[in-house]
Amino acid sequence: MKSKAIITPFETDPTKWYTDLVLKGDLIAYGPVKGTMFLKPRATMLWNLIRKELTSEFNKLGIEEVMFPLLFPESLLEREKNHIKGFAPEVLTVTRVGKEKLKEALIIRPTSEILFGTYFKKQLTSYKQLPLLLNQWANIMRWENNTRPFLRNSEFHWQEGHTIHAKVEDAKKFSETIWFLYKKFLTESCLLPVFVGLKTPTETFAGADFTYTVETILKDGQALQTATSHYLGNNFTKAFDVEVLGPDNKHYYPFGTSWGISTRLIGALIMTHSDNDGLCLPSKLAPIQIYISLLFVKNHPELKSAIKKFFMPLNYLNYLKKNKKPIADIERIEKTWSELYDNNNFRIEINDNPDLNRNEKFIKAKLSGAPLIIEFGPNDYEKKQITIYKRSKLSEPIIKNLKDFNFDIYTYKNITFDDLMIDNDKILKEKAKLNFDNHKVNINDISELEENLIKQKYCLAPWEENPNQEENIKRKYGATIRCLIQLENPEKAINSNKKTSYQAVIARAY
Amino acid sequence: MKSKAIITPFETDPTKWYTDLVLKGDLIAYGPVKGTMFLKPRATMLWNLIRKELTSEFNKLGIEEVMFPLLFPESLLEREKNHIKGFAPEVLTVTRVGKEKLKEALIIRPTSEILFGTYFKKQLTSYKQLPLLLNQWANIMRWENNTRPFLRNSEFHWQEGHTIHAKVEDAKKFSETIWFLYKKFLTESCLLPVFVGLKTPTETFAGADFTYTVETILKDGQALQTATSHYLGNNFTKAFDVEVLGPDNKHYYPFGTSWGISTRLIGALIMTHSDNDGLCLPSKLAPIQIYISLLFVKNHPELKSAIKKFFMPLNYLNYLKKNKKPIADIERIEKTWSELYDNNNFRIEINDNPDLNRNEKFIKAKLSGAPLIIEFGPNDYEKKQITIYKRSKLSEPIIKNLKDFNFDIYTYKNITFDDLMIDNDKILKEKAKLNFDNHKVNINDISELEENLIKQKYCLAPWEENPNQEENIKRKYGATIRCLIQLENPEKAINSNKKTSYQAVIARAY
Repeated sequence: MKSKAIITPFETDPTKWYTDLVLKGDLIAYGPVKGTMFLKPRATMLWNLIRKELTSEFNKLGIEEVMFPLLFPESLLEREKNHIKGFAPEVLTVTRVGKEKLKEALIIRPTSEILFGTYFKKQLTSYKQLPLLLNQWANIMRWENNTRPFLRNSEFHWQEGHTIHAKVEDAKKFSETIWFLYKKFLTESCLLPVFVGLKTPTETFAGADFTYTVETILKDGQALQTATSHYLGNNFTKAFDVEVLGPDNKHYYPFGTSWGISTRLIGALIMTHSDNDGLCLPSKLAPIQIYISLLFVKNHPELKSAIKKFFMPLNYLNYLKKNKKPIADIERIEKTWSELYDNNNFRIEINDNPDLNRNEKFIKAKLSGAPLIIEFGPNDYEKKQITIYKRSKLSEPIIKNLKDFNFDIYTYKNITFDDLMIDNDKILKEKAKLNFDNHKVNINDISELEENLIKQKYCLAPWEENPNQEENIKRKYGATIRCLIQLENPEKAINSNKKTSYQAVIARAY
Repeated sequence: MKSKAIITPFETDPTKWYTDLVLKGDLIAYGPVKGTMFLKPRATMLWNLIRKELTSEFNKLGIEEVMFPLLFPESLLEREKNHIKGFAPEVLTVTRVGKEKLKEALIIRPTSEILFGTYFKKQLTSYKQLPLLLNQWANIMRWENNTRPFLRNSEFHWQEGHTIHAKVEDAKKFSETIWFLYKKFLTESCLLPVFVGLKTPTETFAGADFTYTVETILKDGQALQTATSHYLGNNFTKAFDVEVLGPDNKHYYPFGTSWGISTRLIGALIMTHSDNDGLCLPSKLAPIQIYISLLFVKNHPELKSAIKKFFMPLNYLNYLKKNKKPIADIERIEKTWSELYDNNNFRIEINDNPDLNRNEKFIKAKLSGAPLIIEFGPNDYEKKQITIYKRSKLSEPIIKNLKDFNFDIYTYKNITFDDLMIDNDKILKEKAKLNFDNHKVNINDISELEENLIKQKYCLAPWEENPNQEENIKRKYGATIRCLIQLENPEKAINSNKKTSYQAVIARAY
């Protein structure tokens, strides 16, 4: 079925395309302060699904959840030199309560190393208490001049893990463990093609010894950092004087990590998978998995409510066939539905709005990001059929005869919506991979950078660590080294005559 | 088993008793800004359990979750006159980004009516979009001079619901529905004895037409407001110019509610149920339900890890009996445990720290708030028995012969820990009710107020609405009318010669 797009095509204007997706996909409204958002129910559910899945992984590693303060005194910001250099210009500062000036200004957390440092100082005295593995889900503020929903906000949400370990190698190993966990989640649940590598010293987190990153390439060839895991050495334990007694009865500064995934990930999901009809989302994270467009229901409030609580039009149809007066039995339907719902099955939205025609409903279905769209209208009713669309293959609707279904509601899974969603996920993954590869180019000389970056490509090249050249690339082309990836065999660097073991991914980035 | 208390007895110093419970019960550490807290894993889990249970109830009512901004421009505060009067002196105000002054100061939300008002203005155009039922879990800041953990904080966490309805009666009814939901949750899951009533105009939420409240009485006879549900009329829709088109094609201002439960509830739980040995918590919300004190395990890291992943010492014992080399089979144990864990059964902590003796472990067990404590030591091993303590009846340990148990791990539920926890809950509930009733006094004359308030009582009295007298009571005795409860038959008011249909609950409050 064809319907007119209400999204600006990506090819016409990628920026407007993205904004249309976010606003018309009913994810957000703009907040009253620049760079802030109202996350509507769909975006909130998407974030909660991300939260649930990551929390379950964190639990397996013995990571405990905490909730730490929003504010810290300005003076604490100056404890770690690199850290303050990195964050000072963008921190929001509270100076008043009502009309009264505060004695000391307070900073809204731009990240919480300082707060965790303060906490570790209070709690830790012995290596026997280690490792201490903590994570929190929190709101964060960093003032931004150029903001875009999810991709760059003044306020964003994230999880931030902070751990302390007795030994260097334990901390290093843990930062790697989390990096792998992120890679798995981003690849398998988010269906994102990614690079995993190390940040150059220039791009390393302010205050960390090194930063592992997981980077993706969006539809426009620009890179996005989707997750980072930092090995902090004992920089913060020194700065916050977190000394512990070791097994040798001597005091020393233990070793830390921090790591996070933020609501930027939602931006990555949208930018990677969506098309000119609206959002496309992986089935594990889609706030709506099955969007049901009901076309034959008139404006009967009780009936509408019953259908909404019922599972699917085919069950409803069956129900109508069996019962002359369906409304009389609403309670049974509600009970059935709540049993299904409690079993945590599909996330469903039913659109039975009598004010909207078929085409209008289909447009809404496509905008929603639901992997599957089901349509059931007068035509289907007549022909005793049901039409199922995979969101990423709308041109090939699946039309099934109703008699092929097992109408017993408790065996509805035989309809294998799960399989159909997995099919759709595969399409998303392949499309994303194709885009990822299409924008990739291997270069052999630094002179090839410019032309490729202009053509929306990102460049892979053997690279010898050189901060000045990195700065040059940034200044000249607005591009950065997203990460360094270990090469199997050393190759000649494009920026020197030496052999190097690292390949750089050079790209423009959000 | 007796062990020396490390908590200041309530009778000696109720304030210190409370602080000891919170700190030694491992719930919080103080934050670096006055009135803020680090919520440690146990307090965070307690809050997450509250969140989970309330969210499930909200879902049943069709309430959707959102995440709205932290900040709004100072100018918006002035939109609703009563609202600004209520909150202006305690709002934290951001005036700088780094060293640069902001053009307009930003307020950290002290509650979010203003933000929801702004959002509703953007979203709503027609009565057909109503009701709109939203809720968010958020951090909130209100500057406080006298702070106490959970009970009065500058930063606290809460859920805040905000709804818009087409008709006055729908909004009023919804605020009642939520009030009942809160009452049920506070009574059944939190085991709190409560009053439910209406706030006097003086005590009504700033900007609301009226406020329903659920109040509890703590161990010291002071009242605590644990949940409120406000009917906002169209005060905020007017203030934010949220007009919708009605069925008659005329524009009008629809009607709102807002309602919340905050981390103060954790304070209420602690203050109501705990004793001089430490925390006591209802089984539904206790972060640890079964605290297992293992006494015979030496410092074998692999063995420790296996036990931690294993369910219980009796299973472990059985396992040891069957296997000469238990460590070899750790993987199987881990698998079994993870299956149990995934089934979301008991929340368990095992203390097998070889540095602590039996008494030290028991002290920790009592501090933790776990409804059940299991001890398994050399003596029990010898006698082939297990000792189970109900936290609120430590003087009567239950000693069971190991042969009475079914050792098959998949039928461990036969041990009926559930029943034992329900027993413990009953004791908590009865103790709380006794305290609630012991502090209650019915008075017939306003002159009886003072002596009773001094004796830590709260007073019930037929009351005729009178703001001046209310102010007097506050000034003279530091007490407030916590709520008005409808009387079955009108009675003569204690503050006038007239008959009244309302009884006031007058108490000092947190």
